[in-house]
Amino acid sequence: MTLQSLFDCQWPIIQAPMAGAQNHRLAAAVCNAGGLGSLPCAMLDASGLRAELAALKAKTAQPFNLNFFCHTPAAAEPQQEDAWRSSLAPYYRELGIDPASISAGAGRQPFSDELARVVEEYRPAVVSFHFGLPGAELLARVKACGAKVLSSATTVEEALWLEAQGVDAIIAQGLEAGGHRGHFLDLDISRQLGTFALLPQIVQAVRVPVIAAGGIADASGVRAAMALGAAGVQVGTAYLCCPEATTSAVHRAALTSPEARHTALTNLFSGRPARSIVNRLIRELGPISSMAPGFPLATAAVAPLRSTAESLGSGDFSPLWAGQNASGCRNIPAADLTRELASGCAR
Amino acid sequence: MTLQSLFDCQWPIIQAPMAGAQNHRLAAAVCNAGGLGSLPCAMLDASGLRAELAALKAKTAQPFNLNFFCHTPAAAEPQQEDAWRSSLAPYYRELGIDPASISAGAGRQPFSDELARVVEEYRPAVVSFHFGLPGAELLARVKACGAKVLSSATTVEEALWLEAQGVDAIIAQGLEAGGHRGHFLDLDISRQLGTFALLPQIVQAVRVPVIAAGGIADASGVRAAMALGAAGVQVGTAYLCCPEATTSAVHRAALTSPEARHTALTNLFSGRPARSIVNRLIRELGPISSMAPGFPLATAAVAPLRSTAESLGSGDFSPLWAGQNASGCRNIPAADLTRELASGCAR
Repeated sequence: MTLQSLFDCQWPIIQAPMAGAQNHRLAAAVCNAGGLGSLPCAMLDASGLRAELAALKAKTAQPFNLNFFCHTPAAAEPQQEDAWRSSLAPYYRELGIDPASISAGAGRQPFSDELARVVEEYRPAVVSFHFGLPGAELLARVKACGAKVLSSATTVEEALWLEAQGVDAIIAQGLEAGGHRGHFLDLDISRQLGTFALLPQIVQAVRVPVIAAGGIADASGVRAAMALGAAGVQVGTAYLCCPEATTSAVHRAALTSPEARHTALTNLFSGRPARSIVNRLIRELGPISSMAPGFPLATAAVAPLRSTAESLGSGDFSPLWAGQNASGCRNIPAADLTRELASGCAR
Repeated sequence: MTLQSLFDCQWPIIQAPMAGAQNHRLAAAVCNAGGLGSLPCAMLDASGLRAELAALKAKTAQPFNLNFFCHTPAAAEPQQEDAWRSSLAPYYRELGIDPASISAGAGRQPFSDELARVVEEYRPAVVSFHFGLPGAELLARVKACGAKVLSSATTVEEALWLEAQGVDAIIAQGLEAGGHRGHFLDLDISRQLGTFALLPQIVQAVRVPVIAAGGIADASGVRAAMALGAAGVQVGTAYLCCPEATTSAVHRAALTSPEARHTALTNLFSGRPARSIVNRLIRELGPISSMAPGFPLATAAVAPLRSTAESLGSGDFSPLWAGQNASGCRNIPAADLTRELASGCAR
């Protein structure tokens, strides 16, 4: 089964969902160029999702992918939140932020009954999940409305688990990938593999199509992934500098600078390891802090630092999500990038 | 310039030098099959090297590669050595080893005047270095005897540095690779990239041929590396279970078991980060210990644990070097493996 027939699109090129850096505009541009555009839904409530879907459908009649997180939100622990804010206190002082003004809050919501109702209403061609899969009842509802279901595996064990749950295809997320690691069976980061090792081992282990993610930036990367047995690719970082993305100016500047060569897995911005370009906060607190509350609770206390710094033109406190290969980042239309990537699909 | 013309061999397939797991036999088998066999020299003194070279030349008339380490050995620090041995004390007791009987010592020697004399005597076609390059005078002597010079880069910066020093080709060592990481400009492990991200960025940055290493286990891996711009590949792990390798029985068993899916970078066995299958020592002390003396001094205190445990059939204390993709490990002649890998070179 090819991805093209599974998704009913022209190319086996998935634009990776990137919450905070894109909306329906990027997704529509990719869909209209023959790829599978993705709408990141983790930071949308039901009404926000409906608005994005209406805008997306106004721009494209092609199939698209809705991406949801399906984590179990960490319980709020006031002592840990206090410790976290204490470790950020010098920065609040430096930027003139009143810590009492900072609201707590989750920032990202897991897939839910309410969001499933929107899926049932809009019947997307594809739904992808990150951090495993939702509960059986929610998953059955997604499948019942005809959506093909994808999720990310970061180990062979996770791929086997996803296949057993009945996913239609598996995203092999190599360690090079930007943004949040999708691991869900084992939180030990040392188990995470590079794409060159992960992809062929998952291809050998499962029967469903495998989509390569992590380090793919151009047509030669697509060719290499196909050579390793991928049925298609999911590309994120290279789309971040397209005009249709909502990537911030500081983020775009970092992606196209030599700084982009140094990324790290960090839990500082959300509470879960995610790959970001190393900036001041990561350098000074270290990429992984035991002070950070669990996912997604770490977000709230950093948010005002980020917005204040960005208003001053600084990315010192921003999650500068990026994979290890930002060499594909250019200010070119997403349709052009999609067609360039697709040129790597010819065998 | 193709690697075949640079090295005067049939295939751009380099068998990775693996000290402790192979000698001239594996190198000769690969050379005779048209690849570039490598002799690991880091654990040989001049007379041992001469003996290996005599045996190698008796088995093959083809070009071969001599591999040397070029680290600056850590200075012995008695307090750190004591702390290290204290952390191993429970294991000495368990295995009935008298700590007073354990000699200190380096285990691995850097490239030197004495070893350069052997190179001048035997004039190998290729000399590769790990951990950068030796001093200018030693490097000039190697070049003067006609050897092509290779070294490993783990970042774009290291590749640019090696090119500026005049190497003939660069090995892009992705994070998936087994054994010792070759980094030498920056010891921050977070700067290390997966092959999918490292290889194309080095190819873009330098003019000399780039050899891909890390995660390549079969012909499809070779095809993928070529698609990403590699002029050739260096493969280690897949050769470890060939009959010509000297890989121990416990190491072979681990490589072909599901345990091989979980490797980690560990400094426990030598003092420098190297990728090994996770075993009891790594699990119990953690992969990176601040107690371990600098490279290569950590080796001596672990050695008797390793040999005693191995004599009991256990790999609990052995460096089980392996890359993240051990799926190519089979008990097949090295010539067959070389030809299989070479079948991925056709464009």
